[in-house]
Amino acid sequence: MKYYVGIDFGGTGIKVGIIDENGKIVIKDSFVTDPSKNGDEIVKHIAECTQKVMDDSKLPQDDILGIGVGCPGLLNPETGQLKVVVNIPNLNGVYIAKGLTDILGKPAFLDNDVNTMSLGEFYYGAGKGLKHVIALTLGTGVGGGIILNGELYRGASFTAGELGHVSIARDGKYCPCGNSGCLERYVGRDGIIENFMISKNKGVETSIDKYLEDGEVTPKAIAMAAGDGDALSIRVLEETGKILGSVLATLVNALNPQAIIIGGGVSNAGELILGPARIEMMKLAYSIPANDVVLVKAKLGNDAGLVGSASLAVANLK
Amino acid sequence: MKYYVGIDFGGTGIKVGIIDENGKIVIKDSFVTDPSKNGDEIVKHIAECTQKVMDDSKLPQDDILGIGVGCPGLLNPETGQLKVVVNIPNLNGVYIAKGLTDILGKPAFLDNDVNTMSLGEFYYGAGKGLKHVIALTLGTGVGGGIILNGELYRGASFTAGELGHVSIARDGKYCPCGNSGCLERYVGRDGIIENFMISKNKGVETSIDKYLEDGEVTPKAIAMAAGDGDALSIRVLEETGKILGSVLATLVNALNPQAIIIGGGVSNAGELILGPARIEMMKLAYSIPANDVVLVKAKLGNDAGLVGSASLAVANLK
Repeated sequence: MKYYVGIDFGGTGIKVGIIDENGKIVIKDSFVTDPSKNGDEIVKHIAECTQKVMDDSKLPQDDILGIGVGCPGLLNPETGQLKVVVNIPNLNGVYIAKGLTDILGKPAFLDNDVNTMSLGEFYYGAGKGLKHVIALTLGTGVGGGIILNGELYRGASFTAGELGHVSIARDGKYCPCGNSGCLERYVGRDGIIENFMISKNKGVETSIDKYLEDGEVTPKAIAMAAGDGDALSIRVLEETGKILGSVLATLVNALNPQAIIIGGGVSNAGELILGPARIEMMKLAYSIPANDVVLVKAKLGNDAGLVGSASLAVANLK
Repeated sequence: MKYYVGIDFGGTGIKVGIIDENGKIVIKDSFVTDPSKNGDEIVKHIAECTQKVMDDSKLPQDDILGIGVGCPGLLNPETGQLKVVVNIPNLNGVYIAKGLTDILGKPAFLDNDVNTMSLGEFYYGAGKGLKHVIALTLGTGVGGGIILNGELYRGASFTAGELGHVSIARDGKYCPCGNSGCLERYVGRDGIIENFMISKNKGVETSIDKYLEDGEVTPKAIAMAAGDGDALSIRVLEETGKILGSVLATLVNALNPQAIIIGGGVSNAGELILGPARIEMMKLAYSIPANDVVLVKAKLGNDAGLVGSASLAVANLK
């Protein structure tokens, strides 16, 4: 059995884990990085955390083939250089892949977390056994990864699959990116909440209050209310799905994929969003590619980040 | 110098030519096939035409490495089988690539004509030297080919790049494909003419009559009138470009290509369409990929089909 390390950046902390060649997590741990240290020190600390997990796993070190790092923000996957790390600016400019390889003596690879999560689903989740897969992550942000002919496709400036800023309407909602009508503003976490609140504030009846934690309306609460038949919640998720489906239809025509996999927190609403999205996608897409694609929920759940990061090593070392 | 044969299907006739490794046409000829013959006889006839062109070229036969066939309609590029050949139904089901190889003793390959034209532009036209290119053909139909990492990407059912039926509006113009709002109905030949005629029939002033051949309004006539300042013609082409640009923006976000190449008869309107398309694409696309893409007219012109078909052999034998 061969093993791969995954390092998953999030906030100021990192998760480190090891998966076997079937994608099963053998061990995982989490650590807090000190963002006030300089870049080299942070890389050294991440390497120490990684070594600790490898030691704790009691696996033969030679059977651990490599390391994948998934990180949000701007980076260069070809050189393994971080460009803009939102919560740890001292890592900006650091060649983290080379740094980890130098210290740990194993090949290390870097990519953005949405791409690594897409690879995770491709190898070990809802895309297992397929060749052409589009994975979308719907959370606070909306991102995507595109796997074609079994390979992650990154594009000319490594932004391929960044579907959050596809404009669905020229005169649509304003997006902080400067554009109007970005998909993220409709199917991302805040967009869904906003759509719900517009109706709620107008006095549309809803039973949402029963489902709120700390009084806060969330996609999770909307999904729970919808599941119990709350008409407003159902409608808001339907509209979310419909907008998602219209963009997916274009991707189906352009890329003729076998599967579109929807992950991220918002995807926990499941068929409440995916059902209407599928209907719209099938309605608007060309019949031949539409009949050959499935729209499904991601499978890896909370481990998507970790398994995904490790999958980046799998992709590079297979 | 190495050479490649291109066979370009169109109507009931075929063009056969040979290009050198720089994409230059060494010789070309055209032949009429008899659609009443059976499939094997038609393949035999095409092989004879091809042999004639190879003989006429006086090239050393061993320097001619292979044969590419570009054909409209449904087909399987992996098996080289024609499925639905609109004007020559007796070819339906025929394994034309194998048939030509058996007779001529050279490797032969089949793909749809839009994909082969895209390969032609990629190797020898506006995409030369690039890695990630989307080529769109705007004619009676609207089709496209997608080349990523230097390889033609075909998708799960070989329909990748079929952008003519991307729906731009749920409640848009009816399309014979059964859907509504298909791109082809706006930026294809008939769609442009229709948009023009709607205004003309309402009495909007236009100087188009000066530019008509046989009294027929065509995209060519509209482009000529627009070039001379006809306001209606300019507006119709602007609207065409704007709709095209909005779809291109989504492709730019999804695929982060280096170039989008527009070919086909409609593209002869040049910047009258591409200008507004570029503005809309840049407005709606995400800034990073938008800044790395160029939108340009195809370069191969009338030879696109022939050079493209031969390029399919280049792609398979390089």
